[in-house]
Amino acid sequence: MYQYNHPPNLRPQYSQARPQSAAYANHGSRHGHHTPQPSGGDPLLFQYFSAVDQDRSGSISVTELQAALINGNWTRFDLDTVKMLMGIFDTDNSGTIDFKGGQASVILSLVLYSNASEFSGLWKYISDWQNVFVHFDRDGSGSIEGSELQQALKSFGYNLSPTLLTLVERKYASTLATGYGPPPGITFDRFVRACVVVKTLTESFQRVDTDRDGWVQISYEQFMSMVLTAP
Amino acid sequence: MYQYNHPPNLRPQYSQARPQSAAYANHGSRHGHHTPQPSGGDPLLFQYFSAVDQDRSGSISVTELQAALINGNWTRFDLDTVKMLMGIFDTDNSGTIDFKGGQASVILSLVLYSNASEFSGLWKYISDWQNVFVHFDRDGSGSIEGSELQQALKSFGYNLSPTLLTLVERKYASTLATGYGPPPGITFDRFVRACVVVKTLTESFQRVDTDRDGWVQISYEQFMSMVLTAP
Repeated sequence: MYQYNHPPNLRPQYSQARPQSAAYANHGSRHGHHTPQPSGGDPLLFQYFSAVDQDRSGSISVTELQAALINGNWTRFDLDTVKMLMGIFDTDNSGTIDFKGGQASVILSLVLYSNASEFSGLWKYISDWQNVFVHFDRDGSGSIEGSELQQALKSFGYNLSPTLLTLVERKYASTLATGYGPPPGITFDRFVRACVVVKTLTESFQRVDTDRDGWVQISYEQFMSMVLTAP
Repeated sequence: MYQYNHPPNLRPQYSQARPQSAAYANHGSRHGHHTPQPSGGDPLLFQYFSAVDQDRSGSISVTELQAALINGNWTRFDLDTVKMLMGIFDTDNSGTIDFKGGQASVILSLVLYSNASEFSGLWKYISDWQNVFVHFDRDGSGSIEGSELQQALKSFGYNLSPTLLTLVERKYASTLATGYGPPPGITFDRFVRACVVVKTLTESFQRVDTDRDGWVQISYEQFMSMVLTAP
C-alpha cells in the first residue's frame, strides 16, 4: 500500500484570501498583493517587523515571534511550530530572524523565496499557509477536522490511510479527544506543523526506500534519527 | 549498535526534593510526604485541584491544566506536554481530569498509582518528575543541557549515541540553537516530554524488532504509525 506516488509539493497553491483568516499574519493578505523588494525595503513589511521586534534589537527572537503569532481562536502558537518556522527562515543560523537577511536559501525546500529577506520570507510563508488553511477549512469553523484534513493532505500528495489520518488528527488536535464524538479540530499553527511533519517523515522514509516498494530495513539509530529530525 | 539492553524504567527513582524545584507542582514536594487517600479525600490535594479547576466544573480541562503549569523560567507548558499528561491520567476517557476518578489504570505503564484518583495520580507524577529534573540539573541552571540529558536518559536505560543525544537536545530545547555555542537547555515540561518520547519510540521499535538485533523491516504505514503515536 504505497501511497505517495506523486512528488509531494507543500507549496501552497491556493490564493483566495478571505478576511476571516486565521492568524496574526492577517495583514499578510493585504501585503500579498505587493511584490516584496529584494533587500527588504518594503515599508509596510518593516512596520510589521517592528511590531514583532518588541525590544527593538533589530532581530526577532523565538520569544518575540511566539508572542506575535496568534491563532484564530486566540491561542498562541506552540513553541515547536515557532521553532520550526524560525528554523526555516533563520538562514544565517543566528537563532533570530533579521529584517535584512542574505539570500534566503530555504531549508526543507518547502518554498523558494530567493532574494527575499528572512522576515519577508517568513511573512509570505505564513500568509500562504493561511490561504491554504482557509481554503481547506470548508465549514469556516476556524479549525481543520476529519475530511478537511484528508483533503488538505491529499492535495499535497499524501494519501494517508484512515488509520494514519486519525492519528494525525489526534496528535495535532488542539485539545484531548474524548471517548465520544469526533476528535477536536486542528488550529492553524498545529495544522502547518502537521503538514510539515507528514512531509518530512515521508521524505525521510523515501530516502531509505530506494527500491520504492513501501518497505525499509532500518536500524534503531536510523529510526530514531528519522523521527527526531522532524519538527 | 544495539543500545537498550536493560528494560527501560522511566519510574523516577530520585526522591530528594529541593526547594528551587521547577514547576507549579512545587507544592507537590510538600504533599509528597502524605499518602494520598484512595478516593481522593486529601484536603490539601483538593485545594490544589480547586485552584486549577478555575471554572469550578469539578473537572480539569486541557486549557485549565495548561494555565496552571509553569516552568521554572515562567514559560508555560507546551500543549503537547499537557495533552500527554492528560492522556496518561484521563482514565475514563472523558477528555478531562476528575478529582475522584476510578481506579487509575495507568497508560504507558510509566507509573503505577493504583487506587489513586486521576488528579492525585497526575499530581504525584508531576512532582516525581520534578525530583528527577532537579536531580539531573546538576548545575542548578533550571534547564537540562548536554551531559545532564545524557545522564538522565542513561539512568532510564537509554544509551543514545552522541548524534541522537544532540538531536534530542535540539528538538526539545526551549529555543532555537544558534551557529555558535552549545544548544540551549531544555525546560521542565519539554524534558518530561523528551524522556517519554524516547521511551515510547524505543518500545515501538522493540516490539517490531522481535529478534533483538537492532534492525527492523517496516512498511510506510508502520513507520508513520509508530511515530504518530508518540507524544
